[in-house]
Amino acid sequence: MKLATIHRGGEAHLVVRAGAGMVDVTQAARTPGWSTGELPLSLIGLVRAWGAGDRRPMEAVRRLVEAAEQGRYGEILDPEAPEIEWLPPVVPSKVMCIGLNYWDHCREQHVDPPKRPILFAKWPNAYNAHRRPIAMAEGSDQVDFEAELAVIIGRRSRRLVDATALEAVFGYTTFNDVTARDYQKGDGQWVRGKSQDTFAPMGPWVATADEIPDPQKLRIVCRVNGVAYQDSSTAEMIFPVRALLAFISQGITLEPGDVLATGTPDGVGVYRKPPVFLKPGDVVEVEIERIGRLVNPVVRAAEASALDLDVRWPG
Amino acid sequence: MKLATIHRGGEAHLVVRAGAGMVDVTQAARTPGWSTGELPLSLIGLVRAWGAGDRRPMEAVRRLVEAAEQGRYGEILDPEAPEIEWLPPVVPSKVMCIGLNYWDHCREQHVDPPKRPILFAKWPNAYNAHRRPIAMAEGSDQVDFEAELAVIIGRRSRRLVDATALEAVFGYTTFNDVTARDYQKGDGQWVRGKSQDTFAPMGPWVATADEIPDPQKLRIVCRVNGVAYQDSSTAEMIFPVRALLAFISQGITLEPGDVLATGTPDGVGVYRKPPVFLKPGDVVEVEIERIGRLVNPVVRAAEASALDLDVRWPG
Repeated sequence: MKLATIHRGGEAHLVVRAGAGMVDVTQAARTPGWSTGELPLSLIGLVRAWGAGDRRPMEAVRRLVEAAEQGRYGEILDPEAPEIEWLPPVVPSKVMCIGLNYWDHCREQHVDPPKRPILFAKWPNAYNAHRRPIAMAEGSDQVDFEAELAVIIGRRSRRLVDATALEAVFGYTTFNDVTARDYQKGDGQWVRGKSQDTFAPMGPWVATADEIPDPQKLRIVCRVNGVAYQDSSTAEMIFPVRALLAFISQGITLEPGDVLATGTPDGVGVYRKPPVFLKPGDVVEVEIERIGRLVNPVVRAAEASALDLDVRWPG
Repeated sequence: MKLATIHRGGEAHLVVRAGAGMVDVTQAARTPGWSTGELPLSLIGLVRAWGAGDRRPMEAVRRLVEAAEQGRYGEILDPEAPEIEWLPPVVPSKVMCIGLNYWDHCREQHVDPPKRPILFAKWPNAYNAHRRPIAMAEGSDQVDFEAELAVIIGRRSRRLVDATALEAVFGYTTFNDVTARDYQKGDGQWVRGKSQDTFAPMGPWVATADEIPDPQKLRIVCRVNGVAYQDSSTAEMIFPVRALLAFISQGITLEPGDVLATGTPDGVGVYRKPPVFLKPGDVVEVEIERIGRLVNPVVRAAEASALDLDVRWPG
């Protein structure tokens, strides 16, 4: 299934893909005939139930999709409609990012692959969603794109091991690890250049893990104004998803809804000759096979504002 | 006023210092005669009201303190009682830390002071509280202490300026920026060495900003097993609190309850000759003048577990 979160009537609503359309699950859960108590009210609610081994909410969503595809459920929304206000699929307690995790990305900058995964953070003020603007960083003219496969953690996890680590994964989404290169290089520590307001667009679609039998075989593309600058495969990852999860969770407890952004392939703007950086008016999109497409326009720094997550997120 | 949060009956309760004791504000807010609707149910609720310019909850807490000190309020708790279960005062959306921000700490490691503040992150899995154990990091024998003054943000803020930045500060607390030095140096990026489960003890007491007219004149001490290893003053800060807030908020929106840990003075374990690192059985304490004392025992890595923040946090 493909799941997302949209803003509707002051609330975050869970939606699910049904054919070319989508259905508001939160609304269905409150609709006579569907309000059996099994439909989840939110994506994080569905994730937590799944993580606790309760498969009923997922099955209830599946039945809703069937009903919608067979014309037995009323309201079908159009994902392309401009009035849809997308939100991040979940509000993670933490976004964990990995640096230098693609062989091709190491080659393009002539550096050796790291001996172990390099972690860094993006703070919640950076959380952003499909179709919402990425704002330039104040005083930076080196705002760059990084297409990434992101993992949505399904259950509280510590000390995972490679062989079974993927069992903790609820699903996968598209992620743009937007970066102010001048901040990043000037500071040495990366979090400021990675966590400017709007710098963590994610979503819209979360593909549940059962739809992605092998996360290391996905085509991943980044386009700016329609031109493909990154076009690679998650097969290029140095540390595959299972190894990242095992490594991180040795000492860092993973929580349901946490996001792991797994690194970017080659083709980022800073290493191109000449370099290509984002500028106001650009449209940047990240597309990953079997998951979806994340599109964001770029605006001036003066127009920056952190996404207001203070809408109501039902349980 | 001095405010803290404790775990009581499955809930996070706001407490306030009254003389040598403390009063459960959350409980008072539900007690006949006190339940006027003005007493806050939580510290974050109080912070949000304060940030919105509503001074009534703060005044109501002040009246409760007066009543307790005059014997007109029943239950006085003992902060030294071993059965008190402390929690972090708030659950910040982000903990922003600053590296190399004391002149004396730069001198002890023979490095030039940074030209601008160096930011790094601690993730929520690291959040920890007074009296709760700090667990060693797996495979690390270089777990170090860092006494820090931490700021509790009072209102949503962007683009603060030096002259008025302190107006965004709700209060100050004690913080231990526990660090696995071997992880930190091996990775280059610091977040993994700084964000192991239990590595961000904070609290117990938040001193409201009116009690700290000048945050740059506070003695700050760190003791291990009673021996003072750090003993400095916040006057040694290279970038004072107001400058840090202005710098960070240029592009990073601050949220109510966010925590800014402002860096550590000299005397940390790694630069001592010979080095001093934490080991199971140690007791480490951070004490800051006018604010309070944060005490944590150290346990083996095998005993590590992230603080469970899934208690109920009333509004």
